[in-house]
Amino acid sequence: MAVEAKRPEDNVIYIGKKPSMAYVLAVITQFSDNKKEVTIKARGRAISRAVDVAEIVRRRFLNDITIKNIEIGTEERELEDKTKVNVSTISITLSK
Amino acid sequence: MAVEAKRPEDNVIYIGKKPSMAYVLAVITQFSDNKKEVTIKARGRAISRAVDVAEIVRRRFLNDITIKNIEIGTEERELEDKTKVNVSTISITLSK
Repeated sequence: MAVEAKRPEDNVIYIGKKPSMAYVLAVITQFSDNKKEVTIKARGRAISRAVDVAEIVRRRFLNDITIKNIEIGTEERELEDKTKVNVSTISITLSK
Repeated sequence: MAVEAKRPEDNVIYIGKKPSMAYVLAVITQFSDNKKEVTIKARGRAISRAVDVAEIVRRRFLNDITIKNIEIGTEERELEDKTKVNVSTISITLSK
Protein backbone atom coordinates (compact mmCIF):
# COMPACT_ATOMS: atom_id res chain seq x y z
CA MET A 1 0.00 0.00 0.00
CA ALA A 2 2.90 2.37 0.74
CA VAL A 3 4.23 1.93 -2.76
CA GLU A 4 0.77 2.57 -4.19
CA ALA A 5 0.55 5.84 -2.28
CA LYS A 6 3.71 7.11 -3.96
CA ARG A 7 2.26 6.56 -7.41
CA PRO A 8 -1.35 7.68 -7.15
CA GLU A 9 -1.71 8.21 -10.92
CA ASP A 10 -0.36 4.79 -11.73
CA ASN A 11 -3.71 3.29 -12.49
CA VAL A 12 -4.94 6.17 -14.65
CA ILE A 13 -4.92 5.72 -18.42
CA TYR A 14 -5.14 8.92 -20.46
CA ILE A 15 -6.76 8.46 -23.85
CA GLY A 16 -5.03 10.20 -26.74
CA LYS A 17 -4.96 9.68 -30.49
CA LYS A 18 -3.60 6.14 -30.67
CA PRO A 19 -5.87 3.31 -31.80
CA SER A 20 -8.27 2.15 -29.08
CA MET A 21 -6.54 -1.22 -28.74
CA ALA A 22 -3.35 0.46 -27.46
CA TYR A 23 -5.33 1.78 -24.48
CA VAL A 24 -7.28 -1.46 -24.06
CA LEU A 25 -3.93 -3.23 -23.66
CA ALA A 26 -2.77 -0.59 -21.15
CA VAL A 27 -5.90 -1.11 -19.04
CA ILE A 28 -5.58 -4.91 -19.16
CA THR A 29 -1.91 -4.59 -18.14
CA GLN A 30 -2.90 -2.53 -15.08
CA PHE A 31 -5.44 -5.13 -13.97
CA SER A 32 -2.91 -7.93 -14.62
CA ASP A 33 -0.59 -6.01 -12.30
CA ASN A 34 -3.16 -6.63 -9.54
CA LYS A 35 -4.73 -3.17 -9.59
CA LYS A 36 -8.27 -3.32 -8.25
CA GLU A 37 -9.31 -0.18 -10.10
CA VAL A 38 -8.27 1.52 -13.30
CA THR A 39 -9.50 4.95 -14.35
CA ILE A 40 -9.75 5.94 -18.01
CA LYS A 41 -9.62 9.70 -18.64
CA ALA A 42 -10.17 11.68 -21.81
CA ARG A 43 -10.88 15.18 -23.06
CA GLY A 44 -12.74 16.55 -26.07
CA ARG A 45 -13.06 14.28 -29.06
CA ALA A 46 -11.12 11.49 -27.33
CA ILE A 47 -14.14 11.00 -25.03
CA SER A 48 -15.77 8.66 -27.57
CA ARG A 49 -12.62 6.56 -27.66
CA ALA A 50 -12.55 6.38 -23.84
CA VAL A 51 -16.02 4.82 -23.91
CA ASP A 52 -14.88 2.41 -26.64
CA VAL A 53 -11.89 1.36 -24.51
CA ALA A 54 -14.02 0.73 -21.40
CA GLU A 55 -16.55 -1.25 -23.41
CA ILE A 56 -13.96 -3.34 -25.25
CA VAL A 57 -12.13 -4.16 -22.00
CA ARG A 58 -15.18 -5.36 -20.15
CA ARG A 59 -17.04 -7.05 -23.00
CA ARG A 60 -14.27 -8.67 -24.97
CA PHE A 61 -11.46 -9.27 -22.49
CA LEU A 62 -12.27 -8.98 -18.78
CA ASN A 63 -15.82 -10.02 -18.10
CA ASP A 64 -15.43 -9.70 -14.32
CA ILE A 65 -14.77 -5.95 -14.54
CA THR A 66 -17.58 -3.56 -13.66
CA ILE A 67 -18.00 0.15 -14.25
CA LYS A 68 -17.67 1.65 -10.80
CA ASN A 69 -18.17 5.29 -11.69
CA ILE A 70 -18.49 7.67 -14.63
CA GLU A 71 -17.96 11.40 -14.23
CA ILE A 72 -18.10 14.18 -16.77
CA GLY A 73 -16.73 17.67 -16.36
CA THR A 74 -15.35 20.77 -18.01
CA GLU A 75 -11.77 22.05 -18.14
CA GLU A 76 -10.64 25.45 -19.31
CA ARG A 77 -7.77 25.26 -21.76
CA GLU A 78 -5.66 28.10 -23.11
CA LEU A 79 -4.96 28.09 -26.83
CA GLU A 80 -1.69 29.26 -28.36
CA ASP A 81 -3.15 32.71 -28.98
CA LYS A 82 -4.08 32.90 -25.26
CA THR A 83 -7.81 32.65 -25.82
CA LYS A 84 -9.54 30.26 -23.44
CA VAL A 85 -11.89 27.50 -24.45
CA ASN A 86 -13.86 24.99 -22.45
CA VAL A 87 -13.27 21.34 -23.15
CA SER A 88 -15.41 18.49 -21.82
CA THR A 89 -13.82 15.63 -19.89
CA ILE A 90 -14.79 12.12 -18.90
CA SER A 91 -13.47 9.82 -16.20
CA ILE A 92 -14.51 6.16 -16.26
CA THR A 93 -13.46 4.02 -13.29
CA LEU A 94 -13.37 0.27 -13.88
CA SER A 95 -13.29 -2.04 -10.88
CA LYS A 96 -12.37 -5.71 -10.47
CA MET B 1 -48.79 11.04 -15.70
CA ALA B 2 -51.05 9.24 -18.17
CA VAL B 3 -50.01 11.60 -20.93
CA GLU B 4 -46.35 11.09 -20.03
CA ALA B 5 -46.79 7.34 -20.26
CA LYS B 6 -48.02 7.62 -23.82
CA ARG B 7 -44.88 9.47 -24.84
CA PRO B 8 -42.08 7.72 -23.00
CA GLU B 9 -39.38 8.97 -25.38
CA ASP B 10 -40.52 12.54 -25.17
CA ASN B 11 -37.74 13.61 -22.86
CA VAL B 12 -34.95 11.83 -24.71
CA ILE B 13 -32.66 13.90 -26.91
CA TYR B 14 -30.65 11.97 -29.51
CA ILE B 15 -27.37 13.61 -30.42
CA GLY B 16 -26.55 13.68 -34.12
CA LYS B 17 -24.32 15.81 -36.31
CA LYS B 18 -25.86 19.24 -35.71
CA PRO B 19 -23.91 21.83 -33.74
CA SER B 20 -24.01 21.22 -29.97
CA MET B 21 -26.12 24.33 -29.35
CA ALA B 22 -29.04 22.83 -31.30
CA TYR B 23 -29.20 19.99 -28.75
CA VAL B 24 -28.56 22.33 -25.82
CA LEU B 25 -31.64 24.27 -26.90
CA ALA B 26 -33.64 21.04 -27.22
CA VAL B 27 -32.71 20.02 -23.65
CA ILE B 28 -33.55 23.45 -22.26
CA THR B 29 -36.91 23.35 -24.07
CA GLN B 30 -37.73 20.01 -22.42
CA PHE B 31 -36.97 21.38 -18.96
CA SER B 32 -38.97 24.54 -19.72
CA ASP B 33 -41.85 22.23 -20.59
CA ASN B 34 -41.76 21.09 -16.94
CA LYS B 35 -39.96 17.81 -17.50
CA LYS B 36 -38.12 16.76 -14.35
CA GLU B 37 -35.63 14.63 -16.25
CA VAL B 38 -34.10 14.76 -19.70
CA THR B 39 -31.91 11.97 -21.11
CA ILE B 40 -29.23 12.70 -23.70
CA LYS B 41 -28.29 9.71 -25.86
CA ALA B 42 -25.52 9.28 -28.41
CA ARG B 43 -23.60 6.65 -30.32
CA GLY B 44 -20.05 6.46 -31.66
CA ARG B 45 -18.29 9.73 -32.33
CA ALA B 46 -21.34 11.74 -31.22
CA ILE B 47 -20.59 10.64 -27.64
CA SER B 48 -18.17 13.54 -27.17
CA ARG B 49 -20.87 15.96 -28.29
CA ALA B 50 -23.35 14.43 -25.83
CA VAL B 51 -20.95 15.24 -22.99
CA ASP B 52 -20.52 18.78 -24.37
CA VAL B 53 -24.31 19.25 -24.44
CA ALA B 54 -24.76 18.06 -20.85
CA GLU B 55 -21.92 20.27 -19.63
CA ILE B 56 -23.09 23.37 -21.51
CA VAL B 57 -26.66 22.96 -20.24
CA ARG B 58 -25.75 22.67 -16.60
CA ARG B 59 -22.83 25.10 -16.50
CA ARG B 60 -23.98 27.89 -18.76
CA PHE B 61 -27.77 27.76 -18.71
CA LEU B 62 -29.46 25.73 -15.98
CA ASN B 63 -27.39 25.74 -12.82
CA ASP B 64 -30.02 23.84 -10.82
CA ILE B 65 -29.71 20.76 -13.05
CA THR B 66 -27.73 17.78 -11.78
CA ILE B 67 -26.40 14.70 -13.52
CA LYS B 68 -28.56 11.91 -12.21
CA ASN B 69 -27.00 9.02 -14.09
CA ILE B 70 -24.49 8.18 -16.80
CA GLU B 71 -24.49 4.82 -18.56
CA ILE B 72 -22.30 3.48 -21.31
CA GLY B 73 -22.99 0.47 -23.49
CA THR B 74 -22.45 -1.28 -26.79
CA GLU B 75 -24.85 -1.73 -29.70
CA GLU B 76 -24.38 -3.99 -32.67
CA ARG B 77 -25.04 -2.24 -35.95
CA GLU B 78 -25.31 -3.76 -39.39
CA LEU B 79 -23.49 -1.97 -42.18
CA GLU B 80 -24.81 -1.74 -45.74
CA ASP B 81 -22.73 -4.76 -46.75
CA LYS B 82 -24.35 -6.75 -43.88
CA THR B 83 -21.19 -6.93 -41.79
CA LYS B 84 -21.80 -6.21 -38.13
CA VAL B 85 -19.84 -3.73 -36.05
CA ASN B 86 -20.05 -2.77 -32.41
CA VAL B 87 -20.69 0.87 -31.60
CA SER B 88 -20.39 2.42 -28.14
CA THR B 89 -23.30 4.33 -26.64
CA ILE B 90 -23.80 6.82 -23.83
CA SER B 91 -26.91 7.86 -21.94
CA ILE B 92 -26.71 10.91 -19.68
CA THR B 93 -29.75 11.66 -17.51
CA LEU B 94 -30.10 15.22 -16.28
CA SER B 95 -32.46 15.94 -13.40
CA LYS B 96 -34.06 19.14 -12.11
